[in-house]
Amino acid sequence: MSFKVHLLNLDIAFQHICHINSKLANKLNLEKGEFAQMHHKGKNLGITIIIDENISDETVGILPNTADDLKIKASDKIQLGTLKTSPSIKYIKEKLDGKPLNAEQINKIIYDVVHDNLDKPTQAYFIAGCYTHQLNDQETADLTKAIVANGQRLKQIPNEIIIDKHCIGGVPGNRTTMLIVPIIAAAGLKIPKTSSRSITSPAGTADTMECICNVTVEAKDLNKILAKANGFIAWGGGVDIAAADDKLIQLRRRIGLDPEGMMLASIMAKKFAAGSKIVLIDIPVGPNAKVKDLPHALNLKQRFENIGKLLEMQVNVIITDGSAPIGHGIGPALEAIDIMQVLENDPKAPQDLKEKSLKLSGILLEMSGKADLDQGYNMAKEILESQKALHKMQEIIELQGKNQEITPPGKNNQTIVADQTGIISAINIKKIAFTARMLGCPFDKGAGLFMHVKPGQQIQKNDPLVTLYSEDAPKLEKTLENLDLGITIQ
Amino acid sequence: MSFKVHLLNLDIAFQHICHINSKLANKLNLEKGEFAQMHHKGKNLGITIIIDENISDETVGILPNTADDLKIKASDKIQLGTLKTSPSIKYIKEKLDGKPLNAEQINKIIYDVVHDNLDKPTQAYFIAGCYTHQLNDQETADLTKAIVANGQRLKQIPNEIIIDKHCIGGVPGNRTTMLIVPIIAAAGLKIPKTSSRSITSPAGTADTMECICNVTVEAKDLNKILAKANGFIAWGGGVDIAAADDKLIQLRRRIGLDPEGMMLASIMAKKFAAGSKIVLIDIPVGPNAKVKDLPHALNLKQRFENIGKLLEMQVNVIITDGSAPIGHGIGPALEAIDIMQVLENDPKAPQDLKEKSLKLSGILLEMSGKADLDQGYNMAKEILESQKALHKMQEIIELQGKNQEITPPGKNNQTIVADQTGIISAINIKKIAFTARMLGCPFDKGAGLFMHVKPGQQIQKNDPLVTLYSEDAPKLEKTLENLDLGITIQ
Repeated sequence: MSFKVHLLNLDIAFQHICHINSKLANKLNLEKGEFAQMHHKGKNLGITIIIDENISDETVGILPNTADDLKIKASDKIQLGTLKTSPSIKYIKEKLDGKPLNAEQINKIIYDVVHDNLDKPTQAYFIAGCYTHQLNDQETADLTKAIVANGQRLKQIPNEIIIDKHCIGGVPGNRTTMLIVPIIAAAGLKIPKTSSRSITSPAGTADTMECICNVTVEAKDLNKILAKANGFIAWGGGVDIAAADDKLIQLRRRIGLDPEGMMLASIMAKKFAAGSKIVLIDIPVGPNAKVKDLPHALNLKQRFENIGKLLEMQVNVIITDGSAPIGHGIGPALEAIDIMQVLENDPKAPQDLKEKSLKLSGILLEMSGKADLDQGYNMAKEILESQKALHKMQEIIELQGKNQEITPPGKNNQTIVADQTGIISAINIKKIAFTARMLGCPFDKGAGLFMHVKPGQQIQKNDPLVTLYSEDAPKLEKTLENLDLGITIQ
Repeated sequence: MSFKVHLLNLDIAFQHICHINSKLANKLNLEKGEFAQMHHKGKNLGITIIIDENISDETVGILPNTADDLKIKASDKIQLGTLKTSPSIKYIKEKLDGKPLNAEQINKIIYDVVHDNLDKPTQAYFIAGCYTHQLNDQETADLTKAIVANGQRLKQIPNEIIIDKHCIGGVPGNRTTMLIVPIIAAAGLKIPKTSSRSITSPAGTADTMECICNVTVEAKDLNKILAKANGFIAWGGGVDIAAADDKLIQLRRRIGLDPEGMMLASIMAKKFAAGSKIVLIDIPVGPNAKVKDLPHALNLKQRFENIGKLLEMQVNVIITDGSAPIGHGIGPALEAIDIMQVLENDPKAPQDLKEKSLKLSGILLEMSGKADLDQGYNMAKEILESQKALHKMQEIIELQGKNQEITPPGKNNQTIVADQTGIISAINIKKIAFTARMLGCPFDKGAGLFMHVKPGQQIQKNDPLVTLYSEDAPKLEKTLENLDLGITIQ
């Protein structure tokens, strides 16, 4: 049945509630606290009933988040009734019993997640089932498709090869994306890159790019930029291509559950939604990286490639060294400076970052057929050193909205020197990342470290090891008090 | 920090919400929709924040269910702040990873469930962990203790042996409790019996006893009745001895999850809370009973006995025939009539119900040491046939609150006769139970079936098989239209 709407001056998030008086509750046979179903313009959502005698008859009081999700205007009439139990509940029980789900079942569950047809505990049961019984490659591919099918999709460019890359992460300074995108785009290939902000690392690609230009761009504008410049580097959160994924991640965070299949689907969904046909995955391996050992890395490589086939995407996986930081700068502003130095052929530019970016770009150029076998690296090198990549980057920056100036490093700094002569035997990336966060990363964009040394390097006593930067003095002092860089000299 | 209380004229159940204005939210660093913590007189609960500018400063608007749970009066001051994440979250993650939990960890989780310190999705993760990785006997015993420790406890009677029995159920008419309690109580042993109402069967013990007397009795009154009469037969829901269990069951119902360990703990918690030291478990086995085959029954028997040892309770398990209904009557009123006939030595009394009750009573009398080995049955028979049990039952009925009259069978009835001569080869208890529910059981107490036949019985064409009773004619008609009794004649 349909009813008048009363917009309440209340605000909640993460769940939906509505107010009705007991007269209407009785008429609809709904009880206080019941998880009911609201319907408007072909869209359903689950909503909790609150009895409120101040609400007039035949009227439903709703909150802003519900009005947004169902696009309800005050003048609209909405429908409310008992929740039709979804077949998803049966599928979720089956998953908890260890039975693999098919594409149709997974899509129904994800549809219900997006439309709030399942309450949060039931969604938690789904996550638990995927965690304890895993998702096989087919289920993971089906989950990827379901996430995309129930999310907002970037406009597809017909007859264009869309390229993307992804890094499993965990290595400070590993900012290759901001070099690969301009190189690939300059080669005439489409590479629409949506990146995340940092959650636990000193900087995410979005945080670093934001030191140079705007990264919060709407889907329609991204499509224009892609058409004009062949690429962009934007914040993924600005484009809601994976609403289901975001909702599930919010529930997974409650107790820190990371079902591998869901993690793989989260990554692949963003590529699939962008219509990427050629994808390169970088898996850094190291004692303190996200992936700790080669066997695990090889297993992930296999899974990525299988899932890629099932999604009709050409997926290559490269396993790289994740034992030490890459580049000189750690932290948004300092990493942005590294990037620009590489693009500008500045002799001070970090060679390891340049080499890794050329290697990855080369693989992508060969995968796309732009370069012949074993010629990708050379083509990428030519594009970079002829500054074609620099000009492409400048074009992208202008289109996304250039900042007045690149964010400078924090004005408070302190250089730490070696207390002995010897060879740098190890640099603990976890401790470097922790130090960067102590200094204010990623929120203080100028905060971070400049690494003067690399593993294997011979140094003399009192040679500089790192320079610490922070935007406010107390953070620098506090960091210096408890300083533990994890740099071993032998 | 502590704040004034404003009782809102709103009503919700199953979850807690509170209203504060954005000024207070900012002061407390709480966000809309955040799961925060409310504290009052040493009790915490988790509560969802709703921003409401109509609430005055330094005031928290709460709903009746929250006021009840925290015993908040309008004049009280309550405390509100961010939720301190509980160690339970770590334990729940470990259980999902297959790690068994210890007593302390389980008790903390159950404490948090009872005090709403964990949101519902997190509680669902706990249930999922117990479902996919099972609870071993030690964990089940610890869960039992935790449920009891965090619930309301019946007063312990020092130096008294407390006796209890439980039936896994699923067999219509299997109403032995109402005979065992008066026999055991008449023998001078304490048997405080809290029973459930029916959920899916034609009648629960509480439904049947309610045809004779009141079954909703408060804990303190039950203690008095027990002291005076040695026993009672009350509705367990009237005594909140397992609040945690009730909350978890509500979440399990969402998708119908029944972790065996949780089911066992639910049963044992009620015995443990009552201080029972001697417990007899009846497991009927049959193709349509809850337990379908002997291997499963034997496994359950082993588990019950192990858990009993861990709880320092003497637990015996008897495996009985669950292939056919027991007694003549199916449905609350008709079963109550059976019971009284047995107690009154009425020749019309159902002998199978009498014999099974004597057998179970005998085992309990031997377990308690009241009767010598192999003398329990005879002692029970003497107590029953000398009408000592009848007088004990009358005493209990008076103390709980006798009805004006025993609820009569429904006035609308119809007898079904055999369509052929032969032998009753099978009676499908599922179909009998379904028919009883069609007729109005368990809510229409007069509804049900009177069974004229038993399996193996020789009958002639047109002999009566069953008589159907209902309180309103349409239900009887509707039942007759689709009648399928599942009685096979060969």
